[in-house]
Amino acid sequence: MTSVHIDLNADLGETTAGNPVADDQAMLEMVSSANVATGFHAGDPHSIAATLKAAAAAGVTVGAHPGYNDPVAFGRRFIDYDPAELVDEVTYQIGALDALARANGTKISYVKPHGAMYNTIVHHEAQAEAVIAGIKAFGDLPVMLLPGGVAVDVAEKAGLTVIREAFADRNYNPDGTLVSRREANAVLHAPEDVVARVLEVAERGSVTAVDGSVLSVDAQSVCTHGDSPGSVNLLREVVAELGRREIAIRSFV
Amino acid sequence: MTSVHIDLNADLGETTAGNPVADDQAMLEMVSSANVATGFHAGDPHSIAATLKAAAAAGVTVGAHPGYNDPVAFGRRFIDYDPAELVDEVTYQIGALDALARANGTKISYVKPHGAMYNTIVHHEAQAEAVIAGIKAFGDLPVMLLPGGVAVDVAEKAGLTVIREAFADRNYNPDGTLVSRREANAVLHAPEDVVARVLEVAERGSVTAVDGSVLSVDAQSVCTHGDSPGSVNLLREVVAELGRREIAIRSFV
Amino acid sequence: MTSVHIDLNADLGETTAGNPVADDQAMLEMVSSANVATGFHAGDPHSIAATLKAAAAAGVTVGAHPGYNDPVAFGRRFIDYDPAELVDEVTYQIGALDALARANGTKISYVKPHGAMYNTIVHHEAQAEAVIAGIKAFGDLPVMLLPGGVAVDVAEKAGLTVIREAFADRNYNPDGTLVSRREANAVLHAPEDVVARVLEVAERGSVTAVDGSVLSVDAQSVCTHGDSPGSVNLLREVVAELGRREIAIRSFV
Amino acid sequence: MTSVHIDLNADLGETTAGNPVADDQAMLEMVSSANVATGFHAGDPHSIAATLKAAAAAGVTVGAHPGYNDPVAFGRRFIDYDPAELVDEVTYQIGALDALARANGTKISYVKPHGAMYNTIVHHEAQAEAVIAGIKAFGDLPVMLLPGGVAVDVAEKAGLTVIREAFADRNYNPDGTLVSRREANAVLHAPEDVVARVLEVAERGSVTAVDGSVLSVDAQSVCTHGDSPGSVNLLREVVAELGRREIAIRSFV
Repeated sequence: MTSVHIDLNADLGETTAGNPVADDQAMLEMVSSANVATGFHAGDPHSIAATLKAAAAAGVTVGAHPGYNDPVAFGRRFIDYDPAELVDEVTYQIGALDALARANGTKISYVKPHGAMYNTIVHHEAQAEAVIAGIKAFGDLPVMLLPGGVAVDVAEKAGLTVIREAFADRNYNPDGTLVSRREANAVLHAPEDVVARVLEVAERGSVTAVDGSVLSVDAQSVCTHGDSPGSVNLLREVVAELGRREIAIRSFV
Repeated sequence: MTSVHIDLNADLGETTAGNPVADDQAMLEMVSSANVATGFHAGDPHSIAATLKAAAAAGVTVGAHPGYNDPVAFGRRFIDYDPAELVDEVTYQIGALDALARANGTKISYVKPHGAMYNTIVHHEAQAEAVIAGIKAFGDLPVMLLPGGVAVDVAEKAGLTVIREAFADRNYNPDGTLVSRREANAVLHAPEDVVARVLEVAERGSVTAVDGSVLSVDAQSVCTHGDSPGSVNLLREVVAELGRREIAIRSFV
Repeated sequence: MTSVHIDLNADLGETTAGNPVADDQAMLEMVSSANVATGFHAGDPHSIAATLKAAAAAGVTVGAHPGYNDPVAFGRRFIDYDPAELVDEVTYQIGALDALARANGTKISYVKPHGAMYNTIVHHEAQAEAVIAGIKAFGDLPVMLLPGGVAVDVAEKAGLTVIREAFADRNYNPDGTLVSRREANAVLHAPEDVVARVLEVAERGSVTAVDGSVLSVDAQSVCTHGDSPGSVNLLREVVAELGRREIAIRSFV
Repeated sequence: MTSVHIDLNADLGETTAGNPVADDQAMLEMVSSANVATGFHAGDPHSIAATLKAAAAAGVTVGAHPGYNDPVAFGRRFIDYDPAELVDEVTYQIGALDALARANGTKISYVKPHGAMYNTIVHHEAQAEAVIAGIKAFGDLPVMLLPGGVAVDVAEKAGLTVIREAFADRNYNPDGTLVSRREANAVLHAPEDVVARVLEVAERGSVTAVDGSVLSVDAQSVCTHGDSPGSVNLLREVVAELGRREIAIRSFV
């Protein structure tokens, strides 16, 4: 007898200038993994600490969520980093979060790069090498990545465990990339579509692309969003449906 | 048979926007303790890492040098922090530096607050409590402070070892405070005066104030500066003279 | 035959890292004056420009809303500025906003300092002198201030027109200061209370303090808030009631 | 009878965190045009104001020197800006400098983009359009550019006067581009080489590339550097030699 389970992750701790970006408390009651901001693209030490404490209380696994040092744009723009600088920025951010995590009753169990850093290392080898080197300089933490990118190869070659993730609310192209946000059908809005996506990942290890083709993803985690009232409510419906189907939400750790 | 020795410390790793503030390499050949910036008042991860690596190579003890999050003013202005925010900022900075230190072959052996933070906690109890709490949240590291201030009491009550420091190139008022930089005689410029100061601290545990009165300081370290060609050359003369007198420059650790 | 009218002002253009703080569009349909952020405490050039364009389209008068250079805390903490630095920061911010305003079909008609800067110059003479000097270095713009503070005297002595403001949703102490946000009764939440406040200011030039005493305020503007869905809805009710009573919402310009 | 003259320009006002990058006073005694930082890649309002005041006193023409909002890297890295955001950032920076310039007895006579912005718009059409649009939104100021790039075409199409510049201390490839700083021969260090370069630009409107080929540059200004004691002394020798040859140093305005 087997049970089906899935990890749900979300970006949290991203308060900027005292203004929360997501409803962290609501999200921590639903997800099993929290990608917690590390202060470069978003998050200040005090709001990060509050999120870590809440994650510890909720029993949610914590990942470090380092980003480009580009707070004005929330870490969402490509920056042509000197790779040597990127290495040290990643180590710095993980170390900072580690200290706050231990001070608040939890610890870092994995690393998920943020925004433009996440997207760039899918194809930019020098930055992929830098990000993985920055993680390894801290320690051999698992790293959460988009399946199929350069960073996956670099991480595995470096001896790090890779957690592949799928997206709960994004449409896929037939080649496994995400439909660009510039397209009208980039995002799934209907709860039944999001539930179907999570179920397909959890039960069959695949996602269905916009043209109907079925892509094998082997994803150990599913990325969700909580940065609007709508996205939080959508996730509530998804979680309720997973409960009815007895699919456990559980960290990959 | 006893030998006389003294610890010389200096602020390093304070490069901003790619522009070095001190000649770190020259200073690391002379001091026994490096207060390394942690990225808030100055220093970026890559230049900090370079200074840590050089400190490891030179066998210089490393301290964390956290400051206010006020890079535009180099952490030199009082900010009326919410103490709870200051706690987490201190922990964050020490954790970040710790990761870079371990990645570069060294470790943090003490903490010295920077600039306005250092001066404020001499008299501001809530911020003193916050800074000490932020250090303890990371671990029980020794803390380097101005003798006689509120922070010394708070640190000792919290169980932290306090390293008292004297200043190599600053004049003292009879009450043990430093002559304000707004006064003409704030800074010692003559090598013989600086040498005399260091010798007095090392051999007799005292400093002589501007009115000739002798103040007991019980200092385990002497603060030096390397932020101008003149200050580096001055220190060279001081170090040479200490050598001639067989006074060892040695970390308090 | 006279008509009663009042100016309603609100802080807008305070998007940080792409995350809006208020519903600027909704607010611009209700207020007559927009205090537009200038990029130091909040706001980036592009989101500021969007708010200026919307203000121009809505026919809302624009004021510059300079703040301390403390984005991490939204300009809400006292900073012990060198007054000479504060002068130039204020001039810089007004000049930056002026260029964006002219590029988007509007212009700056007044200046309202933000947050800790606003509160500090009520009592801190050196900073009050600095802020007023920074405004005058740009031009003789009217300045919106809390009645009764040091800044009012400094501004009038410097020849600037002072616009005194009252607060739509804050309780007053008998001495004319606002009840601290640390007190339970700091903020008015009931629409009828807020309406009564605005009417009292508009029709009688007074506010009633928490102990029932009536304070003369001579306010030419009333400060409103739009930084939560609740505050926007509250203002909608207030505006509707003012309409029923034929009280015009109109800029002081 | 004609006299030969040339404009020398330099980047000034780039103090960061209280630490000057160049010896602005020494440079203002030699150059005819000062590209003054606008606070994004470097410079704070107070140090910028001091440089503007000194430029006014020295009779040096002032240009605005806007850069990417990337202070940690001094504006030297490519950032993949949303062009619409870049437009408003450029306008914001020029407006801020304009206010400080007028408050200090001078005015902006041209615009020279900084660092990665300068280099990017040589080939990146969308950013070139954005930078020129940001300038035009402020006013029809002349713009100083590298000859031969996309930005020159965009600026001229937009009706702006283009000031082409040559480099006093950089070697040229035969195609008119600069020898990369990664190459050993990127920079000219010998005073006689720099003098020869300036003379060739001033007298013949050409530069000689590394392979001996002569390139027509039609440059109205020559870029110099003052960011090290060596570069300031080098410029002193150049200026003295120009004086001996009766070549006037004079703004293009």
